[in-house]
Amino acid sequence: MIKVSIVGGTGYTAGELLRILLNHPHVEIESVISTTSVGVSVGEMHRDLLGETDLVFTDTFSNPDVIFLCLGHGLSRSFLEENDIPKDCKIIDLGNDFRNDPSFMGRDFVFGICELNKEKIEATNNVANPGCFASSIILALLPLASVDALTDDIHVHAITGSTGAGKRPGDTTHFSYRDNNISVYKAFAHQHLEEITHTLKSGGSNKVPQINFVPMRGDFARGIFASIYTKWNNSMSEQEAVDMFKKYYKDSPFVFVSDKSISLKEVVNTNKVLLHVEFHNGYIYITSIIDNLIKGASGAAVQNMNLMFGIDETVGLKLKGSAF
Amino acid sequence: MIKVSIVGGTGYTAGELLRILLNHPHVEIESVISTTSVGVSVGEMHRDLLGETDLVFTDTFSNPDVIFLCLGHGLSRSFLEENDIPKDCKIIDLGNDFRNDPSFMGRDFVFGICELNKEKIEATNNVANPGCFASSIILALLPLASVDALTDDIHVHAITGSTGAGKRPGDTTHFSYRDNNISVYKAFAHQHLEEITHTLKSGGSNKVPQINFVPMRGDFARGIFASIYTKWNNSMSEQEAVDMFKKYYKDSPFVFVSDKSISLKEVVNTNKVLLHVEFHNGYIYITSIIDNLIKGASGAAVQNMNLMFGIDETVGLKLKGSAF
Amino acid sequence: MIKVSIVGGTGYTAGELLRILLNHPHVEIESVISTTSVGVSVGEMHRDLLGETDLVFTDTFSNPDVIFLCLGHGLSRSFLEENDIPKDCKIIDLGNDFRNDPSFMGRDFVFGICELNKEKIEATNNVANPGCFASSIILALLPLASVDALTDDIHVHAITGSTGAGKRPGDTTHFSYRDNNISVYKAFAHQHLEEITHTLKSGGSNKVPQINFVPMRGDFARGIFASIYTKWNNSMSEQEAVDMFKKYYKDSPFVFVSDKSISLKEVVNTNKVLLHVEFHNGYIYITSIIDNLIKGASGAAVQNMNLMFGIDETVGLKLKGSAF
Amino acid sequence: MIKVSIVGGTGYTAGELLRILLNHPHVEIESVISTTSVGVSVGEMHRDLLGETDLVFTDTFSNPDVIFLCLGHGLSRSFLEENDIPKDCKIIDLGNDFRNDPSFMGRDFVFGICELNKEKIEATNNVANPGCFASSIILALLPLASVDALTDDIHVHAITGSTGAGKRPGDTTHFSYRDNNISVYKAFAHQHLEEITHTLKSGGSNKVPQINFVPMRGDFARGIFASIYTKWNNSMSEQEAVDMFKKYYKDSPFVFVSDKSISLKEVVNTNKVLLHVEFHNGYIYITSIIDNLIKGASGAAVQNMNLMFGIDETVGLKLKGSAF
Repeated sequence: MIKVSIVGGTGYTAGELLRILLNHPHVEIESVISTTSVGVSVGEMHRDLLGETDLVFTDTFSNPDVIFLCLGHGLSRSFLEENDIPKDCKIIDLGNDFRNDPSFMGRDFVFGICELNKEKIEATNNVANPGCFASSIILALLPLASVDALTDDIHVHAITGSTGAGKRPGDTTHFSYRDNNISVYKAFAHQHLEEITHTLKSGGSNKVPQINFVPMRGDFARGIFASIYTKWNNSMSEQEAVDMFKKYYKDSPFVFVSDKSISLKEVVNTNKVLLHVEFHNGYIYITSIIDNLIKGASGAAVQNMNLMFGIDETVGLKLKGSAF
Repeated sequence: MIKVSIVGGTGYTAGELLRILLNHPHVEIESVISTTSVGVSVGEMHRDLLGETDLVFTDTFSNPDVIFLCLGHGLSRSFLEENDIPKDCKIIDLGNDFRNDPSFMGRDFVFGICELNKEKIEATNNVANPGCFASSIILALLPLASVDALTDDIHVHAITGSTGAGKRPGDTTHFSYRDNNISVYKAFAHQHLEEITHTLKSGGSNKVPQINFVPMRGDFARGIFASIYTKWNNSMSEQEAVDMFKKYYKDSPFVFVSDKSISLKEVVNTNKVLLHVEFHNGYIYITSIIDNLIKGASGAAVQNMNLMFGIDETVGLKLKGSAF
Repeated sequence: MIKVSIVGGTGYTAGELLRILLNHPHVEIESVISTTSVGVSVGEMHRDLLGETDLVFTDTFSNPDVIFLCLGHGLSRSFLEENDIPKDCKIIDLGNDFRNDPSFMGRDFVFGICELNKEKIEATNNVANPGCFASSIILALLPLASVDALTDDIHVHAITGSTGAGKRPGDTTHFSYRDNNISVYKAFAHQHLEEITHTLKSGGSNKVPQINFVPMRGDFARGIFASIYTKWNNSMSEQEAVDMFKKYYKDSPFVFVSDKSISLKEVVNTNKVLLHVEFHNGYIYITSIIDNLIKGASGAAVQNMNLMFGIDETVGLKLKGSAF
Repeated sequence: MIKVSIVGGTGYTAGELLRILLNHPHVEIESVISTTSVGVSVGEMHRDLLGETDLVFTDTFSNPDVIFLCLGHGLSRSFLEENDIPKDCKIIDLGNDFRNDPSFMGRDFVFGICELNKEKIEATNNVANPGCFASSIILALLPLASVDALTDDIHVHAITGSTGAGKRPGDTTHFSYRDNNISVYKAFAHQHLEEITHTLKSGGSNKVPQINFVPMRGDFARGIFASIYTKWNNSMSEQEAVDMFKKYYKDSPFVFVSDKSISLKEVVNTNKVLLHVEFHNGYIYITSIIDNLIKGASGAAVQNMNLMFGIDETVGLKLKGSAF
């Protein structure tokens, strides 16, 4: 059994990790760390887990095999500085501290996009889990990067659920505001652009054109719907492009190319990615959907853990969706 | 023109008052008071009012004819203590300070349920505006009180929109929690029970039986749907009861008895009340719907103002609904 | 492996059965029957199953061990009349044909409420799966029936998600109507009252008082929130009642009594039932939540199947919830 | 009083027309035509109008001054062919029959975008009301057309509420499907592109570049949020562009340029348009919001009517929003 510690255990991504790992056949959750909730039972905080676990939040761990860091920006670095973690204890960071700046205290973090970096992940003790928007966009564009077909501006609108904004209540996550509302934030300036760009480069793109990315706040709780297009200057036909996408992901157990158009709930509560590819007016048009908390965070983290421990990457991740 | 001051101008009920009063033909908004937002333009706080007003929040008023108090519990009393308001300046309190305890500093507050207390409201300078749940329940039961047909326990479930919980973000108004969720709060113990009871008594009920009231949090922003029944020990038939309801409200311009079952959105964004009456298994069953921010708060307050100033009670309140 | 056939495979309950059974370790889906969609791939109809199955709708089955009937009212009887099903082929009917009228063509259907009828289910070949509202209400009241504490009118409001109304589009499931709306239907007259009553009797209630049941349409897709109270004429204290509930369900792996108040999403996408018990004003007040499509339909059906085949009743049903 | 007839009176746009016109001080509704609902009261079909009108659907009109056509595609032409409408009876068509093909049976339809064609509308008897998506996009781009700044591909994502799909229930308006879901339809191929293009030309654009328009289905009932950008090859600075927008609309009573970013509910249930303009990475980025049923349909139709009858264009259209 893999002994797991979850650090920062009260937020959404920690909750999803718990929901997944409690049913994972090879995992024993050794500790759930929350400095603000020591002594509180996990089922009292994550109320839906009532009856499923006797775990209690603590502030100490005891030789875990892997630590999942579910902390705010910058706090993963502080955690590693303040705690003496053995070098052979694996670290999977769900924050953004090491995605673009991977070396820290002798650890070198691999960017945990399993569909590109599988072998590196299998070989490392340190993974920087990708951001949710980044995952949805990278997986839509990696096949194009692999044939160096990203030649002109990339246009992206992606709409996210409210869980992407975290558990702390605020004006833009107030139900009265968000219900039946739509808005835009950080247009053309989202912090995930950097990890998208360097991943597409490492995926084969000689250079990555400007990405015009408009993130939108949706009035739903879970999921990301990304709508992406770029000029098509390649000789492949639409069908050849679709086939190329399918071939690219033929060994990726969670990525599927749909022949029909897709809607967000087809992946909600699963670790799946659905892509759909069309040609229009000289552009290649791709839609990409994920569950932001699973494939965009905790599910991908468990997939990374599986690879790091040499077990099948799908273990514990065949989740029943909730399409309706 | 009636010179109006709104005190506590940043919350939801103040926002609705502004939206209504900006189009009221007999009103001039003299000041919008917010001690925390002095100098901020009203259109910047209530963003939908962009282009509709040049008002700026201030902390002083200048001889208004009427002051609307949109303050938290207990703060209306503090306001009257701390400010020297002329006795002929009318006060309409949207809080709950004077609903059950109507005498304060020489002012006697009339409970502002226009359908029962119209003449008293016309004659007073001080109105305590009813609570939102209270309005929906009182208006469903007043006809029964008038014929003293409330003889046994009254059973009430009422489900409210998130705006009922106010503008300050919190755990139960977080979109991620509330979206597609339902919960109960203050079961059998809601603070509106007291004003419901004394109003039904003043409406003719010799005594008011126990009211078993379960308030529910709905996953919508506006409106209250109340579902109410009590044993029917009266000789009236179902049709006679329906006719009695219609007769009771024949001079109330905003209350209608529907012959068909009703759904919440039929009143959203209006000052209307819809009631529907059926008999089942020895019970009389009544459904009652209002917009919690309008007939349940700011619309009723304007209706009270109209009566206090001797103008038609519907002026400024013929609002376009948003049924779809 | 248990060879399964699903009849009526295009609706919501069939979709949920498929989602659950595709990951069930002891099941092989032999056929998915739909007379209207023969030849269509299952993943094309239930779009979220893309990549998870190669099944195609058919109109014939081949010696399944168990048939799940997911048909409309009355159609299960027609199916059994028109098809020559071997007596040792088990039948689990998700419709309402045999809930109150259990004998048909030599088959005697057990009412499939696992928490009461476990031994009978283990011994039968024929199960009538309970209705969704019925499940949520029965499980809230069975402990009271067991100590014969149902002595006075039972008051029930229960609010259901839109999936309860089935897949066929209609006026009351139109998004423009239902979004941010609430309504009541079949007040005091829902068809599940009969199965509730006879189950409470078989659960120990000497007689079952009148049940005043108001079903409400909620503006969410999944789940039932039931709010229930009845006069408390028993000597047990509140804490003793809570303990009695916990004891009653101590061997039921999916039913939990929460010490804190509950909200619907704590069970959505799981096979769990959460109950919460309080005393108020001479009443015992119980809230009960289930996922209408899982514990209220397809999950309960699989739980019944597990019992009928002598395997642990939780197999395949430890589902990750989607609380946020 | 203007005598109005509404043809096709049972749908959403007719309902909104009724809600607006019942409170319009210069209008008398002479008839509401529905061949399928003759004799049904209007308040029974549009249930929120209970108590507000005694109108009954009919199939004949009697010398109206203006007819609003709320019919499906192609049916406005049939209506004019089959009915002998006097030439001086004004026609406002809310369908798309005359938007791109304006001459029919001796009538020449003006495209009813008040902000561009005010004088033509004042002078005509025939108006083709713009489409909802078209309105939101045209009003965002007209200032750029006026200075001929549309020089490169225009990128548009616009997300619409379910009322845009009409009242007839269908798979993509089923609540169970649409709740918490997002999808795309008619990507790059929406039928409104033609009216957008010719209007931008008539607004001053020497040529209109390719418009890459991705329409999205949102999980809300009302409103359109359009997110638009195009390469900025003009010498104006960001502030100069904002000022140019404000100047362009200084005489348009319903169009406002917000200095802060905007969210959809700021215009819901009003006839307003809010625009916000930013510069990013060589692009001008514009967000534009309208209520699809009001400024995108019935409100614009009434604004056109006001102009055609020589009354102030805002009469009857100062509607209280429902921002929360």
